[in-house]
Amino acid sequence: MTIQKQIVITGAGLVGSLLAIMLSKRGFKVSVYERRPDMRKERMSAGRSINLALSDRGWKAIRRVGIEEEIRKVAIPMYGRMIHDIKGDTAFYNYGEKDQAIYSVSRGGLNCVLMDLAEKHGAEIFFNERVEDIDLKNAVLTTENTSTKAKTLIQAERIFGADGGFAASRLQLQLKTDRFNYSQSYLDAGYKELTIPAADAGGFRMEKNALHIWPRGQYMLIALPNMDGSFTCTLFFPFEGVPSFASLDTKEKMLRFFNDTFPDAVSLMPDLATLYFENPTSSLVTVRCFPWAFKDKLLLIGDAAHAIVPFFGQGMNCGFEDCTVLDDLMNEEKDWNRIFSKFEHSRKPDADAIAELAVQNFIEMRDLVSKPEFILRKKIESRFHSRYPEKWLPLYSMVTFSEKSYAEALKEGKRQDCVMEKVMSIPGIETKWDSEEVEKIMLEGAERM
Amino acid sequence: MTIQKQIVITGAGLVGSLLAIMLSKRGFKVSVYERRPDMRKERMSAGRSINLALSDRGWKAIRRVGIEEEIRKVAIPMYGRMIHDIKGDTAFYNYGEKDQAIYSVSRGGLNCVLMDLAEKHGAEIFFNERVEDIDLKNAVLTTENTSTKAKTLIQAERIFGADGGFAASRLQLQLKTDRFNYSQSYLDAGYKELTIPAADAGGFRMEKNALHIWPRGQYMLIALPNMDGSFTCTLFFPFEGVPSFASLDTKEKMLRFFNDTFPDAVSLMPDLATLYFENPTSSLVTVRCFPWAFKDKLLLIGDAAHAIVPFFGQGMNCGFEDCTVLDDLMNEEKDWNRIFSKFEHSRKPDADAIAELAVQNFIEMRDLVSKPEFILRKKIESRFHSRYPEKWLPLYSMVTFSEKSYAEALKEGKRQDCVMEKVMSIPGIETKWDSEEVEKIMLEGAERM
Repeated sequence: MTIQKQIVITGAGLVGSLLAIMLSKRGFKVSVYERRPDMRKERMSAGRSINLALSDRGWKAIRRVGIEEEIRKVAIPMYGRMIHDIKGDTAFYNYGEKDQAIYSVSRGGLNCVLMDLAEKHGAEIFFNERVEDIDLKNAVLTTENTSTKAKTLIQAERIFGADGGFAASRLQLQLKTDRFNYSQSYLDAGYKELTIPAADAGGFRMEKNALHIWPRGQYMLIALPNMDGSFTCTLFFPFEGVPSFASLDTKEKMLRFFNDTFPDAVSLMPDLATLYFENPTSSLVTVRCFPWAFKDKLLLIGDAAHAIVPFFGQGMNCGFEDCTVLDDLMNEEKDWNRIFSKFEHSRKPDADAIAELAVQNFIEMRDLVSKPEFILRKKIESRFHSRYPEKWLPLYSMVTFSEKSYAEALKEGKRQDCVMEKVMSIPGIETKWDSEEVEKIMLEGAERM
Repeated sequence: MTIQKQIVITGAGLVGSLLAIMLSKRGFKVSVYERRPDMRKERMSAGRSINLALSDRGWKAIRRVGIEEEIRKVAIPMYGRMIHDIKGDTAFYNYGEKDQAIYSVSRGGLNCVLMDLAEKHGAEIFFNERVEDIDLKNAVLTTENTSTKAKTLIQAERIFGADGGFAASRLQLQLKTDRFNYSQSYLDAGYKELTIPAADAGGFRMEKNALHIWPRGQYMLIALPNMDGSFTCTLFFPFEGVPSFASLDTKEKMLRFFNDTFPDAVSLMPDLATLYFENPTSSLVTVRCFPWAFKDKLLLIGDAAHAIVPFFGQGMNCGFEDCTVLDDLMNEEKDWNRIFSKFEHSRKPDADAIAELAVQNFIEMRDLVSKPEFILRKKIESRFHSRYPEKWLPLYSMVTFSEKSYAEALKEGKRQDCVMEKVMSIPGIETKWDSEEVEKIMLEGAERM
């Protein structure tokens, strides 16, 4: 049993580790308590998602802690979407400008780099320590060691709850404080990870620099490249109904379905049947809550404050932006009550906005991306953007390649929808999409934004 | 430590006790575990709300267990709303037909009658037993005695979670099952109970057979009569802002505000200052979740499944209707998986509907009831209803004096809103509200419903 004054972070995941670096660099004594073992010592998957898409908001935080160069070396740029149709034919669509990309990085690899750096700056990380209780008023944390069952009481100056979507720290706010607004809301679809192994020589068996999508209406398969030449595939699929995880309950049914639906992917997945039946089926949750702070004692951050579904590739990026925003606030303010209060009030609208955008983007990815009307709309927006870059930035770019707040991006995206609805309803738009008539309507629309 | 097969109910509140009667009458061995002491032995308030408004759905369940006559004797009919304006002038508006009323009953008194009857039918109630854990798969409950700290393991055949808005049983579903959708959402307003004592001779110091309302826009005071001649008053008031619980922080400020705002009520409340500062300020929450059942092992019922705000006076009535619906299903079905599944699927839309209606009714009660346009609308609806009772039942009556499902009532209420919007926008409606023109529009509107 140790009693010592310090900043405590619950969770040594991506956000917890990054925050530990930022706080340590400011001279705070930081202790991180992580429920899982040290992934640098034990072979384990860090959660179920093996790679993640890093984009501008994430890079900004990474740059700030000085590891951009190191991460660039292990990040694979994906310049656009590669859409696979049911016959196996493909089409490629850029995400933004020619040189703009989102980057496939290994979640575990990035986490290890961040933990190493946190320790280098003086933070201590304690593994196998499960948060059992928090005395909120006094900022006293009780943990239980998952192996020895030993309890530790930690007197903190303040606590950052960075323990993810099912945060024990957040549960303390739910159970012990009045008027804590909270919701956890699940999609009817879940996901399962599958693998396309590397080619024999270690090469990639599909285009390396793309995010691959097999959009099929109510569901989809996606694939992101890994440094070793493999792709991590994720099937997003309904839990119930036909077809669904429930309905594909034999090897025969499953293989028939995959062969009919994702023929070109099946040919690249020799272990499909084994992986499909051995890998877990995971659920997709959006968590919203408020307040995030308890006085100047506890602040939720990252997924603990706002877990979102993965379809905009913004979970980690949003959590990293949380850290950047908090870091900026620590420059502006010295009073922790004010820092926590400003943080939660400024970030809450953005967290709500990206949560909404992420759910919306499931429909875009699984269905719309293969529709000619959608593709034409993107082409029109892209043309207009390149002619009037200051008047129109497509929603995907606002979220992914800009620092515009998520809340503003959502609002502007809705205004763009109105303009584009008008444009797309022009008779014969297919032939006059690059006409002056269209440009005029968009200019007028953009003026009113 | 006892191990015995039986039906377990968590919570001996209104719904838990009523359900214990219904199940015991069917021959089940029923054990009820209640966190609080036996209110029949110890002097205590059963929760913070001292009286409740019983209406038709509640009476139906009470009739079914054979205690209607007993409860009628201690229930005070309230035939309508008595609106108190800022000068202290009053106006009375019937809730429905002349003989229709909602009934003020003592929450504690009713609960005691229900517990007595449950025990008479063979149910056992264990007090001071806090639910600590539920092994959902095996329906094993662990309780801790709040005095002795002794733990008890109870092997149940199945468990009914009737432990209210902050149910420990529901928390087990949140913590231990995947894809449990859950939200707890608070209003910005809270409430505080105050008292108007009986007159010296034991009489009532205001009209006995009315629900009194002092509507003031963003907040209100209400009063319900008690059998001893007193009224229980409740101030519904914002937590923050001006005026609010936070802003009225001295006796002087509070009294000045009350004297300005509720002058006629103040004159009847000799203990106002003491009660205002001694009584707790409570929050107002809506809880939604789904599923309510875990296989055939656990079923949430009443507030544990759907806590609502009190503004439609339907919390208890809805919980009692849950019991009636479950009782009917036990006649139809023998398989408990089917009973639980049918229950949750049939009741969920109704629970969501009454939750929405209850929040809406706060605005009606605190603000609209004093507006001439609202009063005129009610008069028009009432006239049309009396001429064409089969074509139009006002929303309040559908919810309070009918067996129509809450979901249907909500839907029909919205359709009525559309018709009435048209009616109320007729120029000069104040003078021709009982004209043929108005009746024609309403007949047409009613036809399309």
